[in-house]
Amino acid sequence: MSITRIQPNGRLSQAVVMGDLVFLTGQVGNPNELVGEQTATALAAVDDLLRQAGSDKSSILNATVLLSDIDDFSAMNQVWDNWVDRINPPSRATYQAPLITRDHKVEIIIVAAMKAQ
Amino acid sequence: MSITRIQPNGRLSQAVVMGDLVFLTGQVGNPNELVGEQTATALAAVDDLLRQAGSDKSSILNATVLLSDIDDFSAMNQVWDNWVDRINPPSRATYQAPLITRDHKVEIIIVAAMKAQ
Amino acid sequence: MSITRIQPNGRLSQAVVMGDLVFLTGQVGNPNELVGEQTATALAAVDDLLRQAGSDKSSILNATVLLSDIDDFSAMNQVWDNWVDRINPPSRATYQAPLITRDHKVEIIIVAAMKAQ
Repeated sequence: MSITRIQPNGRLSQAVVMGDLVFLTGQVGNPNELVGEQTATALAAVDDLLRQAGSDKSSILNATVLLSDIDDFSAMNQVWDNWVDRINPPSRATYQAPLITRDHKVEIIIVAAMKAQ
Repeated sequence: MSITRIQPNGRLSQAVVMGDLVFLTGQVGNPNELVGEQTATALAAVDDLLRQAGSDKSSILNATVLLSDIDDFSAMNQVWDNWVDRINPPSRATYQAPLITRDHKVEIIIVAAMKAQ
Repeated sequence: MSITRIQPNGRLSQAVVMGDLVFLTGQVGNPNELVGEQTATALAAVDDLLRQAGSDKSSILNATVLLSDIDDFSAMNQVWDNWVDRINPPSRATYQAPLITRDHKVEIIIVAAMKAQ
């Protein structure tokens, strides 16, 4: 089974494809943005990486949403709910964790399939 | 490879099946329960979702156990150890994270195989 | 699809193999070590488990790095960067979470492929 690595930088790859599976590095927004904007930026990065891998959001299997403040749950979901494929939503876990800097408010980790048929 | 989504609600699916893999949404108990009771409730929900997917706990590959207070490690494990298939236990990571509300004490995230043979 | 469990102990297995996938239990160092030493110890345990599963670090798909103090990000990465297969790095998420004891500073969770070709 061959493995394809997208945007490897010596430390990590932004995406890794093996067989039917795609694993993405946790995507974040810009630390000076509001949580809704950071969520939109992270989800746009997810879209872009899935496109590069040959997949799209209709094939996401699982999402982990990390919030630096769980009280941002509603603000994050407002953006998520408008973005997600409502017919084909992934399983998801959402919890609170301090992220790479104090100003990063959300990080989104995705496992997707290569293609839904 | 087709993807089957169980209990999709427009935001997430409680379970997603692709090929041999099943991904479950993080399962929780009732916020007014003790941590042991919340663990039992979450694990019963795992059993139910795996049954709906066509699998069972003997085929769990990986578990992530989130505790809102890591000092509940022993109380959670007492319930886990009585529930898990001791011949076929999954790999597991357990750590502390604030969950969806302050009264949710445990969340359990599962990746399973469709069937062990 | 058969499932192989490595070092099962009644609660969890240190590694679980199904098909092309290997899931490892979160690996930690010794609580009395510095974060860099704990990272090295955890990564050595990853190497050992992957070897037992019939894989190696060139086939890691995804890593989750948990730090009890996100300010240890650079110290962890110094060890990670010297260890990781720089041609074949995994996708990765790194965030802060209190671990099993206050003295555990890093935990590393791995999903790998059985073999890259």
